[in-house]
Amino acid sequence: MSKHHRNAIAMTKVRVQKRRKTVGAAPGTLIYTGQQSEAGTRVRLFDFNEGHCDDLPVQRVHDIEQYKARPSITWIDVDGLQDTKLIEQIGHIFGLHALVLEDVLNVEQRPKVEDNGDYFYVVARMLTYQEATHELTFEQVSFVLGGNYLITFQDKPGDVFEPVRIRLRHAHGRIRKMGADYLMYALLDAIVDNYFVVLDRLAERAGELDDLVTARAQERLLADIHRLKREMIFVRKAVWPLREVILALQRSESPLMREETAIYLRDLLDHVIQAIEGIDTTREVLREMHDVYLSNVSNRTNAVMKVLALFSSIFMPLTFVTGIFGMNFKYFPELEWKHGFAGVMVTLAVIAAAMLMFFRKRRWI
Amino acid sequence: MSKHHRNAIAMTKVRVQKRRKTVGAAPGTLIYTGQQSEAGTRVRLFDFNEGHCDDLPVQRVHDIEQYKARPSITWIDVDGLQDTKLIEQIGHIFGLHALVLEDVLNVEQRPKVEDNGDYFYVVARMLTYQEATHELTFEQVSFVLGGNYLITFQDKPGDVFEPVRIRLRHAHGRIRKMGADYLMYALLDAIVDNYFVVLDRLAERAGELDDLVTARAQERLLADIHRLKREMIFVRKAVWPLREVILALQRSESPLMREETAIYLRDLLDHVIQAIEGIDTTREVLREMHDVYLSNVSNRTNAVMKVLALFSSIFMPLTFVTGIFGMNFKYFPELEWKHGFAGVMVTLAVIAAAMLMFFRKRRWI
Amino acid sequence: MSKHHRNAIAMTKVRVQKRRKTVGAAPGTLIYTGQQSEAGTRVRLFDFNEGHCDDLPVQRVHDIEQYKARPSITWIDVDGLQDTKLIEQIGHIFGLHALVLEDVLNVEQRPKVEDNGDYFYVVARMLTYQEATHELTFEQVSFVLGGNYLITFQDKPGDVFEPVRIRLRHAHGRIRKMGADYLMYALLDAIVDNYFVVLDRLAERAGELDDLVTARAQERLLADIHRLKREMIFVRKAVWPLREVILALQRSESPLMREETAIYLRDLLDHVIQAIEGIDTTREVLREMHDVYLSNVSNRTNAVMKVLALFSSIFMPLTFVTGIFGMNFKYFPELEWKHGFAGVMVTLAVIAAAMLMFFRKRRWI
Amino acid sequence: MSKHHRNAIAMTKVRVQKRRKTVGAAPGTLIYTGQQSEAGTRVRLFDFNEGHCDDLPVQRVHDIEQYKARPSITWIDVDGLQDTKLIEQIGHIFGLHALVLEDVLNVEQRPKVEDNGDYFYVVARMLTYQEATHELTFEQVSFVLGGNYLITFQDKPGDVFEPVRIRLRHAHGRIRKMGADYLMYALLDAIVDNYFVVLDRLAERAGELDDLVTARAQERLLADIHRLKREMIFVRKAVWPLREVILALQRSESPLMREETAIYLRDLLDHVIQAIEGIDTTREVLREMHDVYLSNVSNRTNAVMKVLALFSSIFMPLTFVTGIFGMNFKYFPELEWKHGFAGVMVTLAVIAAAMLMFFRKRRWI
Amino acid sequence: MSKHHRNAIAMTKVRVQKRRKTVGAAPGTLIYTGQQSEAGTRVRLFDFNEGHCDDLPVQRVHDIEQYKARPSITWIDVDGLQDTKLIEQIGHIFGLHALVLEDVLNVEQRPKVEDNGDYFYVVARMLTYQEATHELTFEQVSFVLGGNYLITFQDKPGDVFEPVRIRLRHAHGRIRKMGADYLMYALLDAIVDNYFVVLDRLAERAGELDDLVTARAQERLLADIHRLKREMIFVRKAVWPLREVILALQRSESPLMREETAIYLRDLLDHVIQAIEGIDTTREVLREMHDVYLSNVSNRTNAVMKVLALFSSIFMPLTFVTGIFGMNFKYFPELEWKHGFAGVMVTLAVIAAAMLMFFRKRRWI
Repeated sequence: MSKHHRNAIAMTKVRVQKRRKTVGAAPGTLIYTGQQSEAGTRVRLFDFNEGHCDDLPVQRVHDIEQYKARPSITWIDVDGLQDTKLIEQIGHIFGLHALVLEDVLNVEQRPKVEDNGDYFYVVARMLTYQEATHELTFEQVSFVLGGNYLITFQDKPGDVFEPVRIRLRHAHGRIRKMGADYLMYALLDAIVDNYFVVLDRLAERAGELDDLVTARAQERLLADIHRLKREMIFVRKAVWPLREVILALQRSESPLMREETAIYLRDLLDHVIQAIEGIDTTREVLREMHDVYLSNVSNRTNAVMKVLALFSSIFMPLTFVTGIFGMNFKYFPELEWKHGFAGVMVTLAVIAAAMLMFFRKRRWI
Repeated sequence: MSKHHRNAIAMTKVRVQKRRKTVGAAPGTLIYTGQQSEAGTRVRLFDFNEGHCDDLPVQRVHDIEQYKARPSITWIDVDGLQDTKLIEQIGHIFGLHALVLEDVLNVEQRPKVEDNGDYFYVVARMLTYQEATHELTFEQVSFVLGGNYLITFQDKPGDVFEPVRIRLRHAHGRIRKMGADYLMYALLDAIVDNYFVVLDRLAERAGELDDLVTARAQERLLADIHRLKREMIFVRKAVWPLREVILALQRSESPLMREETAIYLRDLLDHVIQAIEGIDTTREVLREMHDVYLSNVSNRTNAVMKVLALFSSIFMPLTFVTGIFGMNFKYFPELEWKHGFAGVMVTLAVIAAAMLMFFRKRRWI
Repeated sequence: MSKHHRNAIAMTKVRVQKRRKTVGAAPGTLIYTGQQSEAGTRVRLFDFNEGHCDDLPVQRVHDIEQYKARPSITWIDVDGLQDTKLIEQIGHIFGLHALVLEDVLNVEQRPKVEDNGDYFYVVARMLTYQEATHELTFEQVSFVLGGNYLITFQDKPGDVFEPVRIRLRHAHGRIRKMGADYLMYALLDAIVDNYFVVLDRLAERAGELDDLVTARAQERLLADIHRLKREMIFVRKAVWPLREVILALQRSESPLMREETAIYLRDLLDHVIQAIEGIDTTREVLREMHDVYLSNVSNRTNAVMKVLALFSSIFMPLTFVTGIFGMNFKYFPELEWKHGFAGVMVTLAVIAAAMLMFFRKRRWI
Repeated sequence: MSKHHRNAIAMTKVRVQKRRKTVGAAPGTLIYTGQQSEAGTRVRLFDFNEGHCDDLPVQRVHDIEQYKARPSITWIDVDGLQDTKLIEQIGHIFGLHALVLEDVLNVEQRPKVEDNGDYFYVVARMLTYQEATHELTFEQVSFVLGGNYLITFQDKPGDVFEPVRIRLRHAHGRIRKMGADYLMYALLDAIVDNYFVVLDRLAERAGELDDLVTARAQERLLADIHRLKREMIFVRKAVWPLREVILALQRSESPLMREETAIYLRDLLDHVIQAIEGIDTTREVLREMHDVYLSNVSNRTNAVMKVLALFSSIFMPLTFVTGIFGMNFKYFPELEWKHGFAGVMVTLAVIAAAMLMFFRKRRWI
Repeated sequence: MSKHHRNAIAMTKVRVQKRRKTVGAAPGTLIYTGQQSEAGTRVRLFDFNEGHCDDLPVQRVHDIEQYKARPSITWIDVDGLQDTKLIEQIGHIFGLHALVLEDVLNVEQRPKVEDNGDYFYVVARMLTYQEATHELTFEQVSFVLGGNYLITFQDKPGDVFEPVRIRLRHAHGRIRKMGADYLMYALLDAIVDNYFVVLDRLAERAGELDDLVTARAQERLLADIHRLKREMIFVRKAVWPLREVILALQRSESPLMREETAIYLRDLLDHVIQAIEGIDTTREVLREMHDVYLSNVSNRTNAVMKVLALFSSIFMPLTFVTGIFGMNFKYFPELEWKHGFAGVMVTLAVIAAAMLMFFRKRRWI
């Protein structure tokens, strides 16, 4: 348990330290704030129109330049952000502002959209649920959308874009016929679709806890509920601003956002709102669950108290009576009585019965 | 109880998994997300104007086409969404966008309205209260409103539209004289009217619980209160967005929404706001009830503690005194006294009386 | 107590069941939703201008028609809504829309204003505090404001309009010189003035409870606090929307609202806002009071626990010691000691003193 | 304590009973709603421009009239509102609306501003902290701002305007060179400055309580915290609306508010916002404090329970063992053993040690 | 601990007493409200353009005047505010309004921006975390931004501007090529960057507490959580209004804010929003933590109760039985039985076993 908690808190920490660069360093300084890993930076390029689709890994950055000039749509898919030099070169080719590149490398951005005239800069967060460790990870995805190109920057290996790549390669649906903005929509849609997968898993865990919470009030359960509640805080933080991002894209009058994409953005907005509502509902349910938990603890303390009071109230008077007849007075004629013992036993039974009736009347038993 | 809880949580789960389609599948892919049942998909057609009203089941989809061309109002009432092929055909006849059809089949939409130029797409949620199982079910109803037609898509068998159908057949009121938008209004009105029936039942259950909550603090009661609170979360989620839907319809300048319907929409809006207020009030009352419950548990624990402390404080000193005179010391002259026993008994009575007075002064008894 | 609670909950129920008419009945169907009483429907008519004031009961509805044509101001005061036929006739004379009449009869409307071109339709709620039963009742008052007439519809007998009637009859103040809109303002002002009377009584009850809450924590007190809190929920619900009603009247550009009335509406708005603030403050104070109550219960449980722990901690060791010397061992030389008994008694006193000092140090006594 | 509580509640009551006038009395009826006192109504007049400053008590109201015509600035400072006749006369001289005079006399207004064309009507609330009784009092101050005059109406004797009067008399700063609007600003600024004095005292009391709350959890402390919390509710209510009052003055385009005063109003607005933030922060701190208090009570109950459980768990088994050897069986060979007593004593010691170790392991000691 | 608490409360106090000047003193009176220290007031001047950078301490205020006339950018960095005379002189040179200077000296301002035509006046708050004492300090920084100059006023020695000074001296980045507005941006950026350093430390402390809160429920821990919660209240208050400050700068159409700085302000705004979100998240996490703490106390009280009830329920009946056989009745044949003792011992064991089974069934052990 404690390891998980440590993780959840670790998330808090990361979330707050926006950038590790020296405080006061000049804006636009390129420093990667994510975790160093061995995977390195891989770049993949898709160039397509209705008729063809090139799909190749990029060895040298200069290879990209020739695609930029072509009228076909080019998707440059950058995976891993450690090679800041390479990212700077790509930025140079497409004329990206230094602050944009800084944001690309600073992987703790909140979702946002920036209209930079020639291109849009969009940040979204991808959620992944690790089935093995029950851990939730967040990954920043940056999109740079130009007239006929889209650049995506991801931090960690692995993503949810594979179905889009397949659709590209196999000319499924309308993706090959439309522009770079539709491609960006399709990728955002894949990210949002995945939110539901993650939320589904979290809601399932909430359901499992709920079955337990009415049955037993264990300390472990409390820890689990709180872990889930905390995760929901961060999930909400990752998903919530996306709503405004898509609204801003929708309202944008830039020629980069074509009119035929508008209806898809509206659909995407619906999905994001639905995800947000799902998050809020799950949070409300978890809050309820915590209330039930606490009320159950109170109830049980009350029940334990009743048992305690019951035993004390019955046996204390009884023991007192036996104590009386255990005194060693010399002149204690009652002790000599023939039916003294039987009389006392009857008295004791009467006391016990009276106490029991008193408590039954009070509905304690 | 636990079965009900399981249901309530089941609702959470369903609510969150927006679509079961493969993540990243192309937008507009038609996949039905509801529960498979044996009822199949039934289509019924009403075609009416002031003079006539045809009411027939549709066997072949092509039969619909001939009605579409006529100037009279046509209502196509689709019940059951499993036959995605059929729904696609209907969509084709009326020129519906693929994303609209996807939303029709995805039965976990939140209420919304979309103006698609030629037609409006409206989603609302129907509430049903199963008297037998005390269960609350939600059903999505989609409306497609064109110039002279209205298509409704429902997921589960059974609805609240029967009185509207009767009014149509018997030429009650103004429904036969007005357009498709009035028909949609009438159906939405029937849905909203039914909200009050459901809310009435839920408020009744709240009233029953309230009578109990001041009388006894049982664990079962807590579970019932929380179940009701959770249900209210989902009811609210189903009803709340309808407000904005109707506002949007009211403000729409589309010729599809005729001016003479405006006053009815305003009336409908009033009802929805009233339903929302009713929901909020019931939620506030339930929250209060939970507070009373918890306060009662505290009060009772306090009362139990008092009884316990009372018995302990009285009998512990008494038993201690008998213990003294039960010691087997050889040189214990008091035991030899003639009135030793009587003296001890008097002492004990005095101690008990003093304790009782002490507690009466503290208002414990 | 339980009867009151039942009443409070009854309010919840009523509030939620908007209309009892068959679900799906045609809009505009006239069904009275209030309680049937024997008082019947009485109509009173005032017709006045600066020079005269006719004040007569209306026997036949047709009598009204002749007043309608006159340029003087006519106030038709309808008390009791059971005679739906009569109300329909009045509606017919003044050309009121069916939906307006439906709202008049449906006595669970929330306060609202509707501009219907020829006339305004305004709903407000009158509050009454029954001194005898400490019960709060709500009554719907509907206003129909035309160019030279005002119709008011009240559900229950008795109202707060008597001073206005007196002013009308005796030509007090400016009421006879001004239009129907000023008359409506004067009646609304009487309703709002009465809110302060009711709030005053409720605040007084809150004050009485507050004096008790710090003195004793009785279960009855808790019930009273919660009853008051619940009543405030409903009072708030009745008063709150009036703010927007008056704002809407104030902003209206209809010729029905004359310019010289504007300053009075601003004054009325001030009063409503003040009433709302009073409600909110009382609610906050009640919430505080509930917190004090709960904290007091905790404090007392803590105090009871201390007494319990005190007695247990002192007498358990003592009784144990007497138990030791009450054992019947044959070889128990200490029992033979001459000062054995005295020694034990001293030991017991030392133990008791030590325990008392320990608890004094812990500030338990 | 209880007296203070009574006062706090008294405040609630007063706050709610807006006007004691007969319900339904004609609007504009002049009835003084404050407390009758013997001080009577005193009027003081300042008439000044850059060159001179007349400062005289007004004996007859007619004396005012001559000042009204002069171009110099006139400040009429009315202290005490019992003489409604006199106030009516002043109102007559300056042509004030009956509703304005009604508001002047109704001393439970919330802060507000009204633009009446020829003059502004502003209401603010003055706070005073009585050091002796630790009581907080509220006093309504009304301002009527005309082109070259300012009338202030105060209810109770004593105010915070003395420094402004001194500045006026001694031609300090720019006050003599500027208009009536600047004078009003200066008085409002004095009121707002005094808020900080009061808030300072309240925050100091909060600080004193906070030092105690971590040290001891006394019932008295709880009462003090709640008293302070309740006072903050009323302070907030008095200060909060002033923000909007000043905003409205700032935005007003009336020639009565000169342009050169605008910068001072902006400064005043800053101060009010700061006071509001201070109030909110103190409220949050008090809420925190109450949480700490409650948590401490829980902690202590827990600690008391541990002591109780400790003693019970150790001495109950021990006493039971001595009970066994105190039974009077005839055939009880163990009692004959030579080292029986010693053996039992060792056993008892072992049991006690085992219990202590058990509790140490559970960290109860 | 108590010292820290005293500090936290001290903060509250300071925050509320806006100005110590005599209440009612003329606006614009210059009174320094901070703490007197021995450091005095130091002024440093930077004058730079792309080609050069003068960096010198200012001995006499008159030296500044010559720089003001030059077209190069001048930064006057005032550290320490005790020398109000000197600050007045600087204000005189640059034509600053008296109210602005009053605000500069009143170091308890909330962050704000004022457009005074010729210059902007901006207030921000610098946060510092003292590693040694774990104390948080706040320092007000005022900016006066003119066409070619920037004046900064700081209260306490030490700041976070050193990296900016280095960049100025060494012509790093674009800072020497751009205007005074960019310099102000760079300094604000340094302040906001430092927020993340502080938030990082606070989140780390929250993480340490969280590791402890699930392990033990100590009173100290509660105090620590509450101290952190209280600090977050003040951090939030310092950071939150900065958002609106930057928004106002961004939207300003003043020529003082050049267009090329806009993109940097947008970036700064992003950072501030992120800091605010970080603060809110940490607050939510702390609230959660407090809930866990309280739930744990409840759980432990429940656990202690169970142990108590367990011991009482087992040993009370047992002791009662031994009491029976310890009575001294003469006619008590059972005592004579040969296997009486053994029988009783077996009975006792059976009772104990039954009780244990009963509690195991109730899951108490």
